[in-house]
Amino acid sequence: MKKMIKQLTIIGVGLIGGSLARALKHAGVVDEVVGAGRDVQHLQRALALGVVDRIETDLALAVQGADIVVVATPVGAAEAVFRRIAPGLSVDTILTDVGSTKTSVIAAARTAFGQLPENFVPAHPIAGTEKSGVDASFATLFEGRRVILTPTENSASQAVTRVRAMWGKTGAEVVETNAEHHDDVLAATSHLPHLLAFSLVDTLARLDTKQEIFEYAAGGFRDFTRIASSDPEIWHDICLHNSDALLKMLARFEADLDSLRQAIADNDGDYLLRVFTHAKTARDQFCED
Amino acid sequence: MKKMIKQLTIIGVGLIGGSLARALKHAGVVDEVVGAGRDVQHLQRALALGVVDRIETDLALAVQGADIVVVATPVGAAEAVFRRIAPGLSVDTILTDVGSTKTSVIAAARTAFGQLPENFVPAHPIAGTEKSGVDASFATLFEGRRVILTPTENSASQAVTRVRAMWGKTGAEVVETNAEHHDDVLAATSHLPHLLAFSLVDTLARLDTKQEIFEYAAGGFRDFTRIASSDPEIWHDICLHNSDALLKMLARFEADLDSLRQAIADNDGDYLLRVFTHAKTARDQFCED
Repeated sequence: MKKMIKQLTIIGVGLIGGSLARALKHAGVVDEVVGAGRDVQHLQRALALGVVDRIETDLALAVQGADIVVVATPVGAAEAVFRRIAPGLSVDTILTDVGSTKTSVIAAARTAFGQLPENFVPAHPIAGTEKSGVDASFATLFEGRRVILTPTENSASQAVTRVRAMWGKTGAEVVETNAEHHDDVLAATSHLPHLLAFSLVDTLARLDTKQEIFEYAAGGFRDFTRIASSDPEIWHDICLHNSDALLKMLARFEADLDSLRQAIADNDGDYLLRVFTHAKTARDQFCED
Repeated sequence: MKKMIKQLTIIGVGLIGGSLARALKHAGVVDEVVGAGRDVQHLQRALALGVVDRIETDLALAVQGADIVVVATPVGAAEAVFRRIAPGLSVDTILTDVGSTKTSVIAAARTAFGQLPENFVPAHPIAGTEKSGVDASFATLFEGRRVILTPTENSASQAVTRVRAMWGKTGAEVVETNAEHHDDVLAATSHLPHLLAFSLVDTLARLDTKQEIFEYAAGGFRDFTRIASSDPEIWHDICLHNSDALLKMLARFEADLDSLRQAIADNDGDYLLRVFTHAKTARDQFCED
């Protein structure tokens, strides 16, 4: 029987790229997955794990014959990857990505290709863990999670339909919005929290009492800082490539935090109680645990 | 057979007080647990759950005949509780607490009793969840966790030994330090993270895109903000009662965060990568998950 995808080429077979390959294989909708990237050892590991069926370090070769190409590298590499795959793309190949920042990836595509290809559909699965690399990948990562498509003004509806169908097979709920809005929302829910977690752990780890501090940390601290175990390269890319939205959110946060600081200095218990109660109510309403 | 504790009086039967009662009953080391507090319905719930054997709203009566009295109210109530139990305490009764701030509780005791009692041993179990109330209590909360004792200059060694023995029966590891040091370390590992989590969720919940923001939040955000579901009253007390140490840590954090902000604005990837890598390395070293 003809499968939905004959050849899927994934560039960057890490947590996200690897999990997508596993999910689509598990769903039985792909004939062959080609894993591509610059690190041969890493690709060989993906091959040994059965996450990909074939590996290739020449990106133009890797995308030849692909129905769908998924760029799953850190967002800072997007432009270079687009340039390198350009010679190998056919007019029928669907191109998508999984980057956490969308306006920057779209800008990279415009620069690399000269214009935005009709078959290019930017996407971002809202899923992940603090782990990274293909060894951390698993087939159910996207089940019940959202994938946000941010089609460009040039994206052909047929291309959008195919990317939507692919993600649907992973068990994800696929939604659409525009890139700017995506970047604003993700700055708030993901990029700023990661920045704060990295920042706090760095601050504490530079204290003289570092050893004690981590030893005396309870479960709340472990949860709070878990995202500080995320991949530094990926996240430094994200911060730089969504800097406008992130700086806007950060300024708002810094101002609000400073009001709390002032309230503590002024012994203003009412203010603290009001803010804490508002936060707890909001979180309890939206998060089950 | 004579048990370690004939009568244990717990003032404030919430998550911590309730879990201590459950743990000591489970260990079979207490004859009778008296639950005390101002809210009769709450106490009746603790009685119905079997967490306490007897309830009492008159604190002076509640502590009469007790071997050990544990004050497990929010730290802001400590002074008033000490004043109210004073008439009922015998010279043999051991007095301890579970407050997250230690210098403020010691100051409250000094004020309420006129001097620091020999039988008073301040303590703080480093355990908890974002849940609160007696319904959230469970016998194994302290297993493998640390309990920090911060004896005062007046604490009798025999009293310290008894409080240490009591906590040992819950499966906790008991350590000792001084109150100021405790407050500095906890400001870093617990009080500042809670403040940041409350602050961030409050900020996001006041955005127009609030609904979307929480809907698009992934697992990392849920973990990061879990402590913002903690009890607002308890935490506003803690912030006000450890304000010196907390403001010191907060100033350091704000300065470091601002350096990160500047680095993002300056597109200084090296700086971001250095900070993020340092944070990840430190966290991976100290936390297993």
